[in-house]
Amino acid sequence: MRTRPLKVALLGCGVVGSEVARIMTTHADDLAARIGAPVELAGVAVRRPSKAREGIPQELVTTDATALVKRGDIDVVVEVIGGIEPARSLITTAFEHGASVVSANKALLAQDGAALHAVAGQHGKDLYYEAAVAGAIPLIRPLRESLAGDKVNRVLGIVNGTTNFILDKMDSTGAGYQEALDEATALGYAEADPTADVEGFDAAAKAAILAGIAFHTRVRLDDVYREGMTEVTAADFASAKEMGCTIKLLAICERAEDGRSVTARVHPAMIPLSHPLASVRGAYNAVFVESDASGQLMFYGPGAGGAPTASAVLGDLVAVCRNRLSGTTGPGESAYAALTVSGMGEVVTRYHISLDVADKPGVLAQVATVFAEHGVSIDTVRQQGKDGEASLVVVTHRASDAALGGTVEALRKLDTVRGVASIMRVEGE
Amino acid sequence: MRTRPLKVALLGCGVVGSEVARIMTTHADDLAARIGAPVELAGVAVRRPSKAREGIPQELVTTDATALVKRGDIDVVVEVIGGIEPARSLITTAFEHGASVVSANKALLAQDGAALHAVAGQHGKDLYYEAAVAGAIPLIRPLRESLAGDKVNRVLGIVNGTTNFILDKMDSTGAGYQEALDEATALGYAEADPTADVEGFDAAAKAAILAGIAFHTRVRLDDVYREGMTEVTAADFASAKEMGCTIKLLAICERAEDGRSVTARVHPAMIPLSHPLASVRGAYNAVFVESDASGQLMFYGPGAGGAPTASAVLGDLVAVCRNRLSGTTGPGESAYAALTVSGMGEVVTRYHISLDVADKPGVLAQVATVFAEHGVSIDTVRQQGKDGEASLVVVTHRASDAALGGTVEALRKLDTVRGVASIMRVEGE
Repeated sequence: MRTRPLKVALLGCGVVGSEVARIMTTHADDLAARIGAPVELAGVAVRRPSKAREGIPQELVTTDATALVKRGDIDVVVEVIGGIEPARSLITTAFEHGASVVSANKALLAQDGAALHAVAGQHGKDLYYEAAVAGAIPLIRPLRESLAGDKVNRVLGIVNGTTNFILDKMDSTGAGYQEALDEATALGYAEADPTADVEGFDAAAKAAILAGIAFHTRVRLDDVYREGMTEVTAADFASAKEMGCTIKLLAICERAEDGRSVTARVHPAMIPLSHPLASVRGAYNAVFVESDASGQLMFYGPGAGGAPTASAVLGDLVAVCRNRLSGTTGPGESAYAALTVSGMGEVVTRYHISLDVADKPGVLAQVATVFAEHGVSIDTVRQQGKDGEASLVVVTHRASDAALGGTVEALRKLDTVRGVASIMRVEGE
Repeated sequence: MRTRPLKVALLGCGVVGSEVARIMTTHADDLAARIGAPVELAGVAVRRPSKAREGIPQELVTTDATALVKRGDIDVVVEVIGGIEPARSLITTAFEHGASVVSANKALLAQDGAALHAVAGQHGKDLYYEAAVAGAIPLIRPLRESLAGDKVNRVLGIVNGTTNFILDKMDSTGAGYQEALDEATALGYAEADPTADVEGFDAAAKAAILAGIAFHTRVRLDDVYREGMTEVTAADFASAKEMGCTIKLLAICERAEDGRSVTARVHPAMIPLSHPLASVRGAYNAVFVESDASGQLMFYGPGAGGAPTASAVLGDLVAVCRNRLSGTTGPGESAYAALTVSGMGEVVTRYHISLDVADKPGVLAQVATVFAEHGVSIDTVRQQGKDGEASLVVVTHRASDAALGGTVEALRKLDTVRGVASIMRVEGE
């Protein structure tokens, strides 16, 4: 074994960073044996240097992250700051000064992954980011390497623990959205401002990264259709139960049936209780992958948290250090397929639509005519009425989102339709 | 991209081999793009050359596997023959003549993995075998690479699809073992001679491989305790249901609580219905991994079949080809931890024991005394009697297998105990 240590600079020392530092210390012998050389924490860039950090010698702590990544003797920079800047500039500077990079930064990778990969490639360095998607769950490596001889057709994932906790709570207790969110906040599963989670921004970033890797095609964050889950109601869960379904916030990356285009989207959807994703409880994440040869695979585990995310970071750190010792780099960006990335209108799926309608003869015929005129075929209709008001629940066969959108617009114009109570996609069948 | 192709020799062209050949042809462009050079099927060694093989040019077919691996121009040998010989000699010869090897051979890897890794290392070649455990499910790569910065404490897996199909059938229909086996055979899930599956030999080989990788310690096939599932009865499933459990044939690799020794075992066990492994249906496989930092991960998918296994082989093929182009090798055997591998007596778990006893006063006191004398603490007892006969179901707290064995031996000697109807371990709690 080489005795000269590989030097690691840690950018950020919050929940994840402090766990990375702790494991580097407590598991130093194991890491050395697995890498073939010791690894040494050479510097830790933080915003508040005065804060006590157990196990991290004060002389390693600096507020000057730029100077740290410019030192020139750093082998690997571990970036766990998050956000776009200064993370992007620091990573770029790290490559320019000879370091490889391990990042947990989903927002940055989703927005600027291609540019960062290009800089890494120019300098012959590695950029690894297993921790950016679904925390500890090995996902990027299996997609990028284990399935390298297969053709992925669909990735269907629960990639946000906060929203899964809220939806699971609504499902199991009948609670409304606000009540479940309050509990998630009280238990620390939701942040004070939960927007990034509940509006699907976090999941959309992960969907962009996953789609890019799965389809060997650049998928930008802007390409991902995004719909949050704040409007899911207890009534929606009741409807889902009647269909033998539950509701999950899903990130869905799909190859179109003709194989030439792909889509990526995040929205709440009904999935059958028999689907493996339906039983993913609490804040857990799981990603279901469908491919030509493998069929159906699922990867399940904690999607966030300091220690799980640190485990993913350290797995990457070991790989990058091993590459460095053998003078190679791992697989970089693979975007050779360059498939067309289509918008939401091209997505084909099934829909569950609840309408408030007048309770009088001929309404169903009117509604059915509108669906037919837009080429959307109806699978089942359920009608319930009382006191002159009625609700009509329509479940469609597979149709394009564009056709469904046109249908709903026309339904709203009918005198007999008082309102569209909810539209929910049905997935995983 | 390099235009000179990498040459692949395929040993065996059965269910898996023919799928490997097919995908190499149909996905040639994708494979070339992902590897950075085309791959070419340079020879296929078979036993029956006259059999028609769609898509494989007759001039590539040979019965002389040894001559094929000795050619010297072969970059990667893909071994999908199975069994110990001639696979072992062919792989060794392949390394000696400059090739790297991708194998799907669990029996060989479990028995001679260390020796084969040593030969690969001497010649600076890769030995990859993702397909040897749990078919298409990426498992070896995640354990070996993604979790390289973590400490694995337990691997708990359903790694044999045939037995999972049979047990699932018994669970869902109330069928007995033989009836469920007959259905598995009729549907092609069980072989004409199902011994390797139902007696746990197949799962034991996979347990040895998984334990070795998880604990960075050599675990020989002989180190794995093995108990088949042919004696699981409908009554056992009824007992399991009363406990809120089901029964699965599990491969369990565990680090002892003191951290200094490990065990590996295969046997039927009760697991709670709330455990993610409990809902693994039909012939699917799933492996649950518990580690210090990641917590609980699960990997799920088809554990066998031509196309899924071929997907795993091709993922390895891409990795090995990439390594070859960059002049490196991937991680080899990692056995640095060299932990003690303990026998079954050291395993600590809970037990569910059904006794047929005389229905008279004092029996429970006698039985309880025997447990106490052997230091096995009782969690719950359930007594049911009629017509002078009674059954006593005892569920213990955690105890060593040695202590439990002593208890059972002593119970058999009691006049009031007419027989031990079943002993089943309880896992995953």
